[in-house]
Amino acid sequence: MIANRMKSLTPYVPGEQPQDGKYIKLNTNENPYPPAPAISKFLKEMDITNLKLYPEPTSVKLRTAIAEAEGLKPDNVFAGNGSDEVLSFIFYAFFDADFGPVLFPEFTYSFYPVYSAFYNIPFTKVSLKDDFSINIEDYLNRKTTGMIIPNPNAPTGVYLPINEIRRLLERFPSDRLVAIDEAYIAFGGESAAGLINEFDNLLVIRTFSKSSSLAGIRLGYALGNEKLIQALTTAKDSFNSYPVDYITQKCGELAVKDAEYGNDIAERIIATRKRFVAAASALGWEILPSMANFVFAKKPGRSGEEIYTRLKKQKILVRFFNKPGISDFVRITIGTDEEMETLLSAIKTF
Amino acid sequence: MIANRMKSLTPYVPGEQPQDGKYIKLNTNENPYPPAPAISKFLKEMDITNLKLYPEPTSVKLRTAIAEAEGLKPDNVFAGNGSDEVLSFIFYAFFDADFGPVLFPEFTYSFYPVYSAFYNIPFTKVSLKDDFSINIEDYLNRKTTGMIIPNPNAPTGVYLPINEIRRLLERFPSDRLVAIDEAYIAFGGESAAGLINEFDNLLVIRTFSKSSSLAGIRLGYALGNEKLIQALTTAKDSFNSYPVDYITQKCGELAVKDAEYGNDIAERIIATRKRFVAAASALGWEILPSMANFVFAKKPGRSGEEIYTRLKKQKILVRFFNKPGISDFVRITIGTDEEMETLLSAIKTF
Repeated sequence: MIANRMKSLTPYVPGEQPQDGKYIKLNTNENPYPPAPAISKFLKEMDITNLKLYPEPTSVKLRTAIAEAEGLKPDNVFAGNGSDEVLSFIFYAFFDADFGPVLFPEFTYSFYPVYSAFYNIPFTKVSLKDDFSINIEDYLNRKTTGMIIPNPNAPTGVYLPINEIRRLLERFPSDRLVAIDEAYIAFGGESAAGLINEFDNLLVIRTFSKSSSLAGIRLGYALGNEKLIQALTTAKDSFNSYPVDYITQKCGELAVKDAEYGNDIAERIIATRKRFVAAASALGWEILPSMANFVFAKKPGRSGEEIYTRLKKQKILVRFFNKPGISDFVRITIGTDEEMETLLSAIKTF
Repeated sequence: MIANRMKSLTPYVPGEQPQDGKYIKLNTNENPYPPAPAISKFLKEMDITNLKLYPEPTSVKLRTAIAEAEGLKPDNVFAGNGSDEVLSFIFYAFFDADFGPVLFPEFTYSFYPVYSAFYNIPFTKVSLKDDFSINIEDYLNRKTTGMIIPNPNAPTGVYLPINEIRRLLERFPSDRLVAIDEAYIAFGGESAAGLINEFDNLLVIRTFSKSSSLAGIRLGYALGNEKLIQALTTAKDSFNSYPVDYITQKCGELAVKDAEYGNDIAERIIATRKRFVAAASALGWEILPSMANFVFAKKPGRSGEEIYTRLKKQKILVRFFNKPGISDFVRITIGTDEEMETLLSAIKTF
């Protein structure tokens, strides 16, 4: 009864989401600040009679707001049920075994190999440099169906400068997709969205989960040439015509229109990150340079699992990855100053 | 750049969703009444700080509420981003070209062939009887990977009695899925959910879009043996771990817990349907017997498209299907008594 294609699946395992509220949650890169105040006002004043109707299937107002913020056209924007769904449609629409494997970094978002298995697409993990940075040369001169990298990368937090992405696009085959997953771009990096009008094979993926504090509503989007967006729309309309609900479309639109609030909380997180990195380094921790709302950190002599377990006992959740090469590290989300002080007190006892 | 698998797609086209509010919308089978009042209270009182966190990924409270209402266990319930997403995962998880084509009725939900193309699954359309009813004999003794039928069927509204579904399950291969899509079951039919503990190969699919007036939040679910539910969960977690957002989970839970309200509005729609069918029949319309919140109707001498066009000019939207065999019909959603009176006045001029 189970289809053969199910045999190759090893599902993605998201970070723990304890429902009892007793933990300081620094494990799933959520934003510690609330979403834009206009969202609260909207929800309080909303007429629930609107919910009886199907949502507008193309999220046109939301896409128009995003396009205006980016200096693009609505036809350059695709919206989905979280950037995870957007990424899934990207794997479906652009990556094909007949063209070669999809390329992504050895240590990166662990959903990429899962999507590959879901659609039966071979992949090649490309090594990082010793300092965990990406070397664009390693993605060139290969038989490939396309590539995807997060920038900054996760779980490392390491950023690839925009001029490197430009060099990559200039040399990567123009008929193969380059997907830049910018889930964490708001925390100090420069976006590749400015290159979209120049490179027809570039897709930039964003999420409202991190910088907009809206992980709970599930909203993400892709920016790119209108032909790429059309293909994503065709995939969506062959899977589920209305993935983005009425409330989510509206909340996303309000968050985009209050960019100042989003920038403000991103600045606060960047400042907290700096303070935390300085203080933890002073305690002998080694931390990769991060441009994200998390840091990838290790304490020499301890495994990531050991750090995770000790912190969990103190009601602090971080994430570790039981993989050779990164098993010494934990990924720590940047919370409020107060939360990071509590974490610092805890790690002082190590 | 576009993957070869995209070549075979012809996306589903949902009914029009005009955004100007100027139409009487009888084209997409939405409920004319607002959702349960508890949902309004929840949205007004909700703390938006909750939205900064990812939703609970398994929708456990919602699934528990549904299970209690159905006399099942939470492990018998799978929740998704609309029943369209649930259906998509069903096609992925259970239908396999190696086992044979998937079977569904000749005239049915037009998303089924779209899912088939999305996952490259062959299908066979099984003819309906002359009265548009389903003959279960036609689904037996065939090489097949499984079958899916809506009950009541759409766009016909015709209901297959529960004893026929039992007879089908008794004779269909026990290692092949039987999916009963009960989007419209609340409007007079008897659910097959009571057969789940008896038949391991039965999945029943439901939506909050119709009987719960919640098309705007995108929520659907499947009921079945826990092994089937596990397979759907594996598919979901390999596509998008958090398809059902925080607000949607909560609204669904509140709707399930106010079953009385849901039953009450369903009763009102059934009563309106009866009155409308009597009045339209008296005007010479031919209407298939419906157990849904819509009717499939024709006016001899006119095409479905002609009826659609004339009504649209009068600001009433219905849906027609430009397919041989049903091109004379329009599908008319049952609205409020007032809306149906307006429609009756309009068709009197034909």
